[in-house]
Amino acid sequence: MSTQPIDSYTHEVRVRYAETDRMGVLHHSRLFVLLELARTEMLRRHGLTYRDMEDGGWFLVISKASCTWKAPARYDDVLLIETAITRVTHTRIEHTYRVIRKTDGGVVAEATTTLACVDREGNVQRIPDVLANLLS
Amino acid sequence: MSTQPIDSYTHEVRVRYAETDRMGVLHHSRLFVLLELARTEMLRRHGLTYRDMEDGGWFLVISKASCTWKAPARYDDVLLIETAITRVTHTRIEHTYRVIRKTDGGVVAEATTTLACVDREGNVQRIPDVLANLLS
Amino acid sequence: MSTQPIDSYTHEVRVRYAETDRMGVLHHSRLFVLLELARTEMLRRHGLTYRDMEDGGWFLVISKASCTWKAPARYDDVLLIETAITRVTHTRIEHTYRVIRKTDGGVVAEATTTLACVDREGNVQRIPDVLANLLS
Amino acid sequence: MSTQPIDSYTHEVRVRYAETDRMGVLHHSRLFVLLELARTEMLRRHGLTYRDMEDGGWFLVISKASCTWKAPARYDDVLLIETAITRVTHTRIEHTYRVIRKTDGGVVAEATTTLACVDREGNVQRIPDVLANLLS
Repeated sequence: MSTQPIDSYTHEVRVRYAETDRMGVLHHSRLFVLLELARTEMLRRHGLTYRDMEDGGWFLVISKASCTWKAPARYDDVLLIETAITRVTHTRIEHTYRVIRKTDGGVVAEATTTLACVDREGNVQRIPDVLANLLS
Repeated sequence: MSTQPIDSYTHEVRVRYAETDRMGVLHHSRLFVLLELARTEMLRRHGLTYRDMEDGGWFLVISKASCTWKAPARYDDVLLIETAITRVTHTRIEHTYRVIRKTDGGVVAEATTTLACVDREGNVQRIPDVLANLLS
Repeated sequence: MSTQPIDSYTHEVRVRYAETDRMGVLHHSRLFVLLELARTEMLRRHGLTYRDMEDGGWFLVISKASCTWKAPARYDDVLLIETAITRVTHTRIEHTYRVIRKTDGGVVAEATTTLACVDREGNVQRIPDVLANLLS
Repeated sequence: MSTQPIDSYTHEVRVRYAETDRMGVLHHSRLFVLLELARTEMLRRHGLTYRDMEDGGWFLVISKASCTWKAPARYDDVLLIETAITRVTHTRIEHTYRVIRKTDGGVVAEATTTLACVDREGNVQRIPDVLANLLS
């Protein structure tokens, strides 16, 4: 088990119109979609796709999430999602994120998520070797 | 095959905050979610759940949709979705919808969708008897 | 300031097809949409609509959220969202939630959110009297 | 008024996990989000952002949409959205789209949308000159 960041990646993504709400900002629920995007793209950078993992019978389900919002992200803003793996166990992966507005460096949000590895029936199982090797 | 409405149902639903966009109105893409809701609730009224259909191996996938918007639906508006089955073949079902604001009767949209019945692999198959019997 | 629950409400809602993902369960981001629904419907029960609040110039924006998932919510499951106000300051409201599957009482998730009251420009302002009176 | 394509653009986008549904495919409602993305990115290519248009008081609202689905788009598929402007009037713009799976060229969908230009109050107004000039 490690408590040091063992991987990091910054994902760039633009806020879509359909992701805004009546206040003109990224709806808070949609931030979690962007975090998911960042962590799956981080995997892809290392030659692993989450689709292949699922097709192989390993599913990563979210078991915990927390987020603090600092400032709104508006329509068409480009966001930088700094993503780091901050903790790994045999069955879980913790990511932390900092979401930044690209234009001015303003912090939009800071978040943490914990994923659990489960099989098709939802039973917890060990992270597959190919992923464990990447994370160690 | 029938060209007459053989069933109809009005579904009532309130526009959620997360369904609005920067203009403060129901995002047009989300109208299709509400139409889907209306047609599955219509089925439930007849003792059939779409979940059971899928669990039995029958999937209804959308093959065509068209919609004309007349007026915006705003946050917290209650909408009435008048839903009718307007055409049935061995493998397809056509629904037509009129979406109305409950407070003033204003027409928000008129739409038509065509569903095709497929199996788990996506091959077209006959609508299951239990549904065909309801529609005939 | 209070640390006791000063209000509670259980909101019942069915998981929509469009809210599921490839695993067949409610996508975790969409849980936050349902929590928002529950807390605004709780307000409505007390004669206050969030739409009126926004139209009057008071906006409740999310500043913190955390959630622990215990079990998946599947398509067509009816969920009970037990919602309580657990902390109120001049400018913030904390809600806690327990999301339960209606059929078997299984706990799907437990969550907490903190809302901050802001004006049209996003500056923090006191919660409006009409709401403060309800909460005290 | 023109009935010829006066502009075209191909937008590339990958299907997100949160955009899939229980069947494992892009939920049909979410295709309209991707079409919107493609047409606003086409504008950006010409130096115009839709955000600036809205900030200037011009809103493009959808008045008609139709779509025919040919094949499912699955999680992680890269889609090419071929977008063309096929008709322009003083107050309306029609786009047609062909959505193609990048890996095998398979056609996912064909669609048409009509946008109407309105002001802040929703009254139809002429398309702004800067956009009209681009389209003529």
